[in-house]
Parts: sequence; C-alpha cells; structure tokens
Amino acid sequence: MRYSESFIYTLKEDQKEAAIVSHNLLLRGGFILKLASGIYNYLPLGLRVIRKVSDIVREEMNKAGAQEILMAAIQPAELWKESGRWNDYGKELLRIKDRGDRDFVFGPTHEEVVTDIVRRFVKSYKQMPLNLYQIQTKFRDELRPRFGLMRGREFIMKDAYSFDKDEAGMDVSYEKMNIAYHNIFRRCGLAFRSVEADTGSIGGKDSEEFMVLSQTGEDEIVICDSCEYASNVERATSIVEDEPAQEIELKEVATPGKQTIKDVCEFLGSDPKFSAKALVYKNEKDEVFCFFVEGDDELNLIKAMRATGSVELEMVSDDELKKLGLEKGYIGPVNFPNKDVKVLCDERIKHRNNLVVGANEPNYHLMGAKFGRDFECDTADLRVVKEGELCPRCKKGTLKKIRGIEVGHIFKLGQKYSKAMNATFLDENGRSVPYYMGCYGIGIGRTAQAAIEQNHDEYGIIWPISIAPFEIEIVSLDTRNKELVEFCDILYEQMKKEGFDVLYDDRDERAGIKLNDMDLIGIPIRVIVGKKAFEKGEVEVSLRRDRQKQSVEKDEVLEKVKELRDMLYSEIEEGRDG
Amino acid sequence: MRYSESFIYTLKEDQKEAAIVSHNLLLRGGFILKLASGIYNYLPLGLRVIRKVSDIVREEMNKAGAQEILMAAIQPAELWKESGRWNDYGKELLRIKDRGDRDFVFGPTHEEVVTDIVRRFVKSYKQMPLNLYQIQTKFRDELRPRFGLMRGREFIMKDAYSFDKDEAGMDVSYEKMNIAYHNIFRRCGLAFRSVEADTGSIGGKDSEEFMVLSQTGEDEIVICDSCEYASNVERATSIVEDEPAQEIELKEVATPGKQTIKDVCEFLGSDPKFSAKALVYKNEKDEVFCFFVEGDDELNLIKAMRATGSVELEMVSDDELKKLGLEKGYIGPVNFPNKDVKVLCDERIKHRNNLVVGANEPNYHLMGAKFGRDFECDTADLRVVKEGELCPRCKKGTLKKIRGIEVGHIFKLGQKYSKAMNATFLDENGRSVPYYMGCYGIGIGRTAQAAIEQNHDEYGIIWPISIAPFEIEIVSLDTRNKELVEFCDILYEQMKKEGFDVLYDDRDERAGIKLNDMDLIGIPIRVIVGKKAFEKGEVEVSLRRDRQKQSVEKDEVLEKVKELRDMLYSEIEEGRDG
Repeated sequence: MRYSESFIYTLKEDQKEAAIVSHNLLLRGGFILKLASGIYNYLPLGLRVIRKVSDIVREEMNKAGAQEILMAAIQPAELWKESGRWNDYGKELLRIKDRGDRDFVFGPTHEEVVTDIVRRFVKSYKQMPLNLYQIQTKFRDELRPRFGLMRGREFIMKDAYSFDKDEAGMDVSYEKMNIAYHNIFRRCGLAFRSVEADTGSIGGKDSEEFMVLSQTGEDEIVICDSCEYASNVERATSIVEDEPAQEIELKEVATPGKQTIKDVCEFLGSDPKFSAKALVYKNEKDEVFCFFVEGDDELNLIKAMRATGSVELEMVSDDELKKLGLEKGYIGPVNFPNKDVKVLCDERIKHRNNLVVGANEPNYHLMGAKFGRDFECDTADLRVVKEGELCPRCKKGTLKKIRGIEVGHIFKLGQKYSKAMNATFLDENGRSVPYYMGCYGIGIGRTAQAAIEQNHDEYGIIWPISIAPFEIEIVSLDTRNKELVEFCDILYEQMKKEGFDVLYDDRDERAGIKLNDMDLIGIPIRVIVGKKAFEKGEVEVSLRRDRQKQSVEKDEVLEKVKELRDMLYSEIEEGRDG
Repeated sequence: MRYSESFIYTLKEDQKEAAIVSHNLLLRGGFILKLASGIYNYLPLGLRVIRKVSDIVREEMNKAGAQEILMAAIQPAELWKESGRWNDYGKELLRIKDRGDRDFVFGPTHEEVVTDIVRRFVKSYKQMPLNLYQIQTKFRDELRPRFGLMRGREFIMKDAYSFDKDEAGMDVSYEKMNIAYHNIFRRCGLAFRSVEADTGSIGGKDSEEFMVLSQTGEDEIVICDSCEYASNVERATSIVEDEPAQEIELKEVATPGKQTIKDVCEFLGSDPKFSAKALVYKNEKDEVFCFFVEGDDELNLIKAMRATGSVELEMVSDDELKKLGLEKGYIGPVNFPNKDVKVLCDERIKHRNNLVVGANEPNYHLMGAKFGRDFECDTADLRVVKEGELCPRCKKGTLKKIRGIEVGHIFKLGQKYSKAMNATFLDENGRSVPYYMGCYGIGIGRTAQAAIEQNHDEYGIIWPISIAPFEIEIVSLDTRNKELVEFCDILYEQMKKEGFDVLYDDRDERAGIKLNDMDLIGIPIRVIVGKKAFEKGEVEVSLRRDRQKQSVEKDEVLEKVKELRDMLYSEIEEGRDG
C-alpha cells in the first residue's frame, strides 16, 4: 500500500488519555481512535493487526477441530434468566430495551446462546465432541475502562465453547484448546506463560490463564524457579516453614491507642507474623465476614470470595463496625462479640501457639492466643503468597512474582450452564444427561496491544512480523529524484508480486518525518532508499528491533528482504521464553 | 471438511416462520438459526457464505482504492445530536443507556462516526479523495422484521463513505463505487440491475439501488424495453399520451351513495381517467395534505413525501376527515372547504379539460372541472407509472415492471453531514469548506439470501460457485465398503491439496438422506461415489443446477472437477443478464 494514499495519520505528542506505553503508541501511530470511554474505532493500521491476530486464531482453532459460527450480539433476556445470570451479572451487563419494551442484552459472552443452539440440534452422545467458536465484538460495561484495548468496554473476542458427553471428554477438549492456545500465542511472537487461575463466578473445575509477560501487566503471576509451576496470585499457594513458637498463657495487655499491627507489635516487641489481624467485609447478600490472617500477610480477596461463596466483597465502614459491636483496631477471635458475623481464619493461624490478637475492647490486646485452646472457627487458605516461599508443586524451588497481561483464558465449565438450561443429550444407556462444557476466550485487541507492551523502545513499536500491519516498509527519501522514485516503484511492485505485505512511503515529506513515522509504526523490515547511497547503487536495509542499517546492492534487495523475512518467521516458530 | 465432524443439521420440514423460499431454505439447510425476532445466529454453513460474499466485497472495495476500518458499534448520542438524527431517526434507532446513565445508540449506520473520524485528521484538500469502509454488524429496530436475513434487525453490512473536496470529486468517487458494485454483484453470480432511486430522508443528490431480480422481491422496478432506463417505481416517471378531452361547462350532478371512483364513473358513464380522486394524509408534523390523482392512477407515497417535505405520511381516518370538514367520497378540488389542508394535484390533472370530481357535499359530484378555470393548486409528479407507458429517457420504448431485492445502495450525500457537524477542510484558497460526501451500502446477508431467492429449485438451493459454502461435495454412498471409503478419503485429500473448497459427506447414513441433504444445501459441483458404479471403476459427477449425472472414470475425476469449476467461474466472470 502506498502511504500517500493511506489513511495513516501519526501524532507527535504523547496522548494524555494513555496511562501505559502500548496505549500511547496505538494512539500516536494511528492504529485506533477513541470514540467514547472504553470504545475505540480501528483505523486501517489497527484493523490490519486485528485481522492478522484473528487469522492466526482462526487457523489454530480450525486445526484443533473447532468450527466457526457467528452468534448474534443482541440476546434476549429470557436466556439469561434461564441461566440465572440476568440477576447475577451486575452492572457490566449492558441491558437494552427494544421498541416493543422487551429486554435484551449486548452479549458480554455467549454461554447462554451457544448452549441454546446446541440443545436444539445435539440430542445424542454420538454427536459429540463438539467445539463451536466465533470472533466477535462484545460489550462489557466496565466501571473504569482503561489502557485502550486492554480494558475496553466494546472489544473483539474469540470465544469457543466445547460440548462433551462426559468429564473425560471435556478434559480432552480442554487439553486440545490448551495446545491450540500455546500455538496461537507462540505464532503471535509473544513471550507468555500459561498459569493456574481462579475459576471465579463462571464456576467450573480447572482453569488456566495465558499471560503475556510484561512489567506493566495488571496481573501478578507466581512462578517457581525450579519447576513449571505458574499460577495467578489470586490462586497461588505455597509451603511456608512452620514456626509454631512457644505456647504461653493467654493474658490481656493494655495497648493504649495502638490500632495497627505495626504499632501494636512495636509496642509489645513481638514479631508481626505472630499476630492475627482482622479484616471485616460484607458480600452482595449483606452477609458479614471477619477474616483473620497473620499480621504480615495480605488477605487474598479472591480466595476469601471462594471460601465464602461470595461474588463481591466490600470492606465494612467504621460506622458499620460500630453497629456490629466491633472495636476497630482491637478486634480479635477470642470471645468474638457478634454471632451474626461469620469468622474465618487463614489456615496458618491454626498452627501458631502464641498470637497477639485484639481483645475486643478499646486499648487492649491479648497475648499468647492459641487456636483450639482459646478460640475456634472455620479455616481456609486466605493469604497472598510471598516471594521466596516454597513451591507447592516441587516443594524444592522458591516462588517468584512476575507481572503479566491476561490475553487468554480456558475453563472447564462442567454442567453449570447445561443443567441450568436443561440442555441434555441421551447417553449410551438412553439416559438424559446435561452436556459437559468448556469455554475458551482470547482477547484479540488485548493480544495486539500486549504485543506492543512487550515489544517497543523509545522510538515506537517493534511488531512481531506475524501480526505486524505490514511485513516490510520501503521508504523513499527523495521523491524528486526520478530514477530513485522509479526504482522504488518497481521494487514495490516486485515485492507485492512476491506476496510480501508491504507499505511504501512515497510521501513528499521531509526525511526526518518519514523515518520517525517508520520507527513509530514499527514495521519489522525496512528498506530505506536515500539519494547518496542510491547513487552508489546501494540501499539500506534494517530491522526495526535493532535499527542497524546494512548497505545492500540495489539488485540484491529483494533477496535480502526475503532472507530477513524467513529468519523472523522462523524465530517466531521456535517460540520465545515465557 | 468432513460432514461427519461438522455442525451441519438439516431440517426436513418447511419452517413456519419463513414466508419466502430463501428464508425457508436457509433455515432448513442449517445456515442460520433464529435467536429472536429479526435476530439470527450464523451456523458454520451460513458463516462460510457470509465470508465469501464479504471477501468479494473487500477485494473490489480495495481495488477501487477504498480503505477498510472498523468503527465502534456503540456510539455516543452526542454525535447523533450534532447531525440532528437523534431526533429525526425514529424508533428504528436502538437507544441504550450505559451504567452511568449516558445515552448511546447501537449504530444502524455510521455517517456521524466516520465524519467525526475524518474531521480529526483531514484538514486540507490535499488529503482527499478518501473512501473509508467497514464490514460490520448493525442494528435497526424494524417494526416488522421479516424474511430472515432480508429484513432483519441485527444484520451485517458493508458501509463505505467517501470524502471529496468538491462536487466533481464526489461524482468521481460515486462513479468508482458504481463500478465496484457492478463487479461485486457480478462476481457473486447474480442477475441484477442498478436502478435510479429516491434519496429519501438521507437526502442528497443522485442515488442508485442495486436490485437482484426476483419475482418475490419487495421492490418494484420500472425498466424500458428499448433503452437502459431502470428506476425504482418510487422514483420512476413516464411520458403519457395527452388526452385533454373536450372542454365543457362545470355542472353539479347527483351521485347518491356513490363514493368510489369506480361507482361514480359507472353511474355517470365516464372514463375513470377523466376524474380526480382525493387522498388525504397527514405527516409527522401533523400537517394535513389532500392529494388529487387521476381516477385510474395510484398515489406514489414516496413522491408525495418528497413533494411535501415529509418523512412519514399516514392516511387520515374517517373521524379526522369529518373534523376537517371533508366529506368522504365527495372531496373535490373546486371550492376546497378547508384552508388549513394543503391541496396538491398530480401534474396530469393540469392537462385535463374535463374532470369528474367530488362536489364537497354528500351525494354530489361535479362534471367538467378544469384546472386553472374552476380550481387552482400546486402540482407535482405524484403518480405511480404504469406498464406500457412511454420511457422518459429514450421516449420510444415502453415501460415494464419487474421485481427486485435491494442489495446495495449508493448515494451522493453532498454536504448534509459535514455541514451539520462542522466538518471542514481548507481548500486551495485557504477557505474552510465542508467535505463533499458519498455513502455506499451493501447488505451482506441480504445478498447471500437474494442469491437463493434467485437460484433454487424444488429440491433446494443452487449456489453460485463464488459464494457457495463449498465448491464441491463428495458423497460416499457406502461407508462399509473399505475400498470405496479409501478411494473417497484419498480423493478428498487430493482435492484439498489442489486448493478446492470441499465438503466430504462421509456420514454413516442412508443414501437417500445424503442425496437429499446434498440437493438442499446446494453445493454446485457433486461427486457421488456409489457401490455399483465404483465396482465398474466409475463415479458420478454432476452439477447442482441440472442434476444431470455423468459417469467419469475414477482416475479422471479430479480433472473433470477442475474443468467444471473453471467453467462455472468463467460463466460468472461473463456476468448474467440483469
């Protein structure tokens, strides 16, 4: 494509609305344009990237035996009432009334619709396994849309749904998707990890997230330095050395004005890990919970939600604490004062012999509290694991935390939706059984943007060749030199003929502008035709990633470019460390 | 693709919801599945067709220099307020409130958004011409969705928008699209006509519709039997022989109980064409109009709307007539009794010397009424042209009416949107000028369905090869015969290798079921492998359109199929009469 005829407009200035580099570069490079909060238009360059990622996804999904369909974006509320999510989904679900005042939603996901499709046709176990997928625009009315395509409201997603006759079949379908996802993200040229993930409100058994590694990622990942263990911090566990400490007698001590763990422990000269701090939350049903974790631990909200069957947990205000009869800063598990509040301790609390805890009266704490002797309650894993702790899988390596951007998620749903929607088939014995389902998502736009977050420098984007808007850019630096222009024109036509995906910057602009735009847009292979070199019969070829120019004889350019392209693609095939 | 592994489920029974053949066949063939009124899911076969039509559209649009983008589906109301359509568009516009109670719409079309995009970047006449297009899901909340993809609420559309610096440039952009559209519909294998169309409420200058010819089409087209004139009946004009008749004196005659033109004329022994009938309508602003056309003419509502600047016209009820002081059945233009009602005559009324008209009192008519002598009012072309009338262009041929399905529409918008949205550029003289725009739509799903409406028989669909879900189907009729199966398997793999798009019916089903499904789904080239012929070393090859089987030696099948495929594609390239 000729740049002079293209709708490509770059911006010099950093964009205020962008809090992260990739968002800024997408805007500055003319890939996307904001229409409203969390809603973007894809301009020609952006759409080319979206299309390349989609094509890779499509190829790998087809290879894995999935079949492409396209479900409607606007869905009748009835299906969401059947599944129960009409009430459960909350404000992220964009609800719509049509002209006849009937309820609809703009689909944020398609479990209901796909289950409805399948139950109309699939009546026998012989018709499975089945995996249907689509690449489609979705809408989730995020409270705080941010980071461009990373957390938009309207976004393009690949969603797939598998249907099997039993759990073993579901496991096979899941594993096929796992492999397909590895292929997809490798082919997109990304360094990524698949990590264990919480199944959250979607429910189900196993779940893995695919994380593009990046220091600016919103997700924290826990990895082992010696085995393959990798988990979202939301779900990660660890083995912590047991230090039960000396058992002593329970005694009350005055701690006037000391409300925080730090203050109390300093005052008493004790180690925060031998204390229990209280955190009081209420859930969407207004049930109140008091969680105790060790003084130097952090409450893992996702684990707390799972332990309490909650969809949302919100911290209780000081006023509410008072009404509940709880003394802020002095709450403790011994003689807990309110029976309507459910008390839950982290499992590690159980193993301590000697804890500093609140005395449930102002300005007093207890020392030497011991689970089982002085208090009892339900326990669960409620803490966030820490770096340096022991790996729960190999039990040898130590854990490390890195950050990542979630670009894919695979789930074993089991029978959650098929049961709710009475979507059944007849098994070998003629019995009616709900399907065993899996669901598998990839954020197409987010994948594209994550690639930038992982691959850029101070000059702009460095696209992996497989998802770059173009593979090659020719820049002619002297548009008044007839011979030079003719050479570029012919080279451009030759490259197109050879099947290269090429952008030809033939604009009548200053060299500086063209070279800056080239770096910003980030096309991986560049051919720069300048006057001086051209007169010597040479042009400059370089890769975007190192910007190292090589002089190449004019009639060897095509060969050189082919060689570089093959090299870049074979590097991608080999994969990158994740 | 192997049929046994495909999500293809055909239905034996005609579908009640389908009022036209193509809709029934799309449902029965497992191409689409209804989710709600006017909202459909595309199943694998249906999506394949949609994709093939889209690819043809994309290639021709790119060839014409247009650039693909993808605009957001959800658009902020502010833009629609800027253009004025927030108020004008009516109930077809799906209005949405987000969680922050802000107004949005699900885009039914994208003039506002694209104008907003372009005004941010295009500031100089040097940056034009520009043509941006997208292929996208739209929503129009039709009052009566019907005929499947023909008039759905959620539908896939290609919409393009051109921007030029002046009217001459706009004309060139429009003409490029005109050519592209001819290429697109020819390559889709359709018999079609481009016809003059009314510009309707979108406004603008010229407009042409692309009509797929079909007796079940919703649109009536007027064509000349001797020249290229073709027009939507909404806009068509004609030359009608002038028969002024003898001028006589005006006189009142009793016509007791005779209210219809037919009754009155029979009673008086006069020719209906020498009478004027009254039609009373009110528009969206509650303005009332009385239209007079000749007794044997039909009022053309679209022309009436244009003549009165109305967006909607609704017939006035009998009660309302009374309140207006108008006598139903006896309304006439002489001494018209209500000055608040605007009277408009068809132009032909002006040329008559002698008309039977209502006397504006019950049971009386006037004979001999003459425009200019007995009454005067504004005139306009208000009638529907009739078959057999003289062509307005060549003035020699006679007009004929045929029916069509509108699959594309091109418009010169002029400065309607750019003026309203203050979207301007600087021209050669540094003056600020609103862009000259055109807009160009193609209904992707409607095109696919129109192809069926035009190409089917009593057994099912007959797809044009260029948009068929597959080009070739192999049917093995004996799945227990090892040699036969092996032959089919190898043939299937060979065909895939050769780049054929092939469906292989390897199901363990009765021959009758497989052959019926094959006819229903309508893949253009078929290879049937039956036991008897196979044992003689032969297979049967046929085209879907004539179902004439040809015996072909086993090892010549591939060659034969190639030959047929090339033949079908070259037929399409030659085009079909429209």
